[in-house]
Amino acid sequence: MKIVELGLELRVAAAKVGKYASRESGDTLEMIERPRGGVSFVLVDGQTSGRGAKTISNVVARKVVSLLGEGVRDGAAARAAHDYLFTHYQGKVRADLTILSLDMTTQTIVLSRNTHCPTIVFQEGEWSLIQDMAEPVGLTTFTKPTIVEFPFQAGTYVVISTDGLWSAGARKQEWDVLGFIREAVERDAEPESVAQSLLCKATELDAGRPADDVSILVLGVLSRADGRGVRRLVVHVPI
Amino acid sequence: MKIVELGLELRVAAAKVGKYASRESGDTLEMIERPRGGVSFVLVDGQTSGRGAKTISNVVARKVVSLLGEGVRDGAAARAAHDYLFTHYQGKVRADLTILSLDMTTQTIVLSRNTHCPTIVFQEGEWSLIQDMAEPVGLTTFTKPTIVEFPFQAGTYVVISTDGLWSAGARKQEWDVLGFIREAVERDAEPESVAQSLLCKATELDAGRPADDVSILVLGVLSRADGRGVRRLVVHVPI
Repeated sequence: MKIVELGLELRVAAAKVGKYASRESGDTLEMIERPRGGVSFVLVDGQTSGRGAKTISNVVARKVVSLLGEGVRDGAAARAAHDYLFTHYQGKVRADLTILSLDMTTQTIVLSRNTHCPTIVFQEGEWSLIQDMAEPVGLTTFTKPTIVEFPFQAGTYVVISTDGLWSAGARKQEWDVLGFIREAVERDAEPESVAQSLLCKATELDAGRPADDVSILVLGVLSRADGRGVRRLVVHVPI
Repeated sequence: MKIVELGLELRVAAAKVGKYASRESGDTLEMIERPRGGVSFVLVDGQTSGRGAKTISNVVARKVVSLLGEGVRDGAAARAAHDYLFTHYQGKVRADLTILSLDMTTQTIVLSRNTHCPTIVFQEGEWSLIQDMAEPVGLTTFTKPTIVEFPFQAGTYVVISTDGLWSAGARKQEWDVLGFIREAVERDAEPESVAQSLLCKATELDAGRPADDVSILVLGVLSRADGRGVRRLVVHVPI
């Protein structure tokens, strides 16, 4: 089966906000082209928040991005980032790492998790949570990611995030992230709207003052909007 | 002057399409967070088109991205990418390289050009072309970029592109890129619309079959759309 003929496209939307009163988010999100085709998204939540967390998440993201850019496979890049952080900080510093890739060689979406933060997936009409044990990088020897692959299939959604999304409003009570996403997708299937409503909701739960850095990435495999092979990128950066 | 209080944001939109009948674009566009604050966009047009060009543009972009990610300044990263390509291919291969950065430490937009392709700028109510001599990387010893800096100022636009934009429809006649962009911004100031109309126009000039890879990036410094410090990213990748 030639996937190219299906006229699909990957539409990804991410939104990121820093903890209230922090000058910057401690999360890092990077995107890199895979040299053998496709793209990868690397999301890292550094320990604590603010400047210190940012340095850590930057170091981890940079290591992963630079390896993926050289064609290294996702699992090996995650292991290397762990080894690097573990060596550099003698196991005293942790980071949550998630890699989400569109791999054109295997024609799959590859999810590599080193985080306790669940991933939400919609596939073949079913919503599910991927939350099997996945140690963060940096703490113990021989940490490795848990990896899941999905075929390119129209209507597939994958939502990754840092734990700020899950813990939003937690001072009061836990909230139903999966239920909210399901409703958001039913209302408007565009990843951009889903990411936006998720971030609004999380901020609202914290009464407009996020208690932690929140980063969200929503990936959808959808029919091409314009029917042609145009790659697009839109970025908003507050200054 | 504290720029942060101005409530500005950088809105960047890029669009990229491959030469007609080529399986992939030979251009590479990458984005990377600057470790001391801000983001950089790296646009590379590899010699020829298709797979060979892609390999070259990938190598150059990767080198630049990895150096910028480590905090290396833009001019040094461009020089390093040149030296690397020059050494690796003994001066036989060229690439056009443009780096456009939002540098939070100097509070400027930094444009580094190693290309004959002009950059279009709108600043303080004036449109202009930046087209001073700037050798591509890879060919001769000691190549260096030409660098221009702009302060963060609401209403500033910078448009960078690969030469496919300028040569669109060239079999018939040259077209007025600057005039078109000026009108596009007057019609709709959103960088996303400007990038979209530019790509449409370029494709139309080639009767829907681009004669070369075309990549366009439109950067605008504008008032924040939502008033809060949310960073956003939207990506569409045809598969």
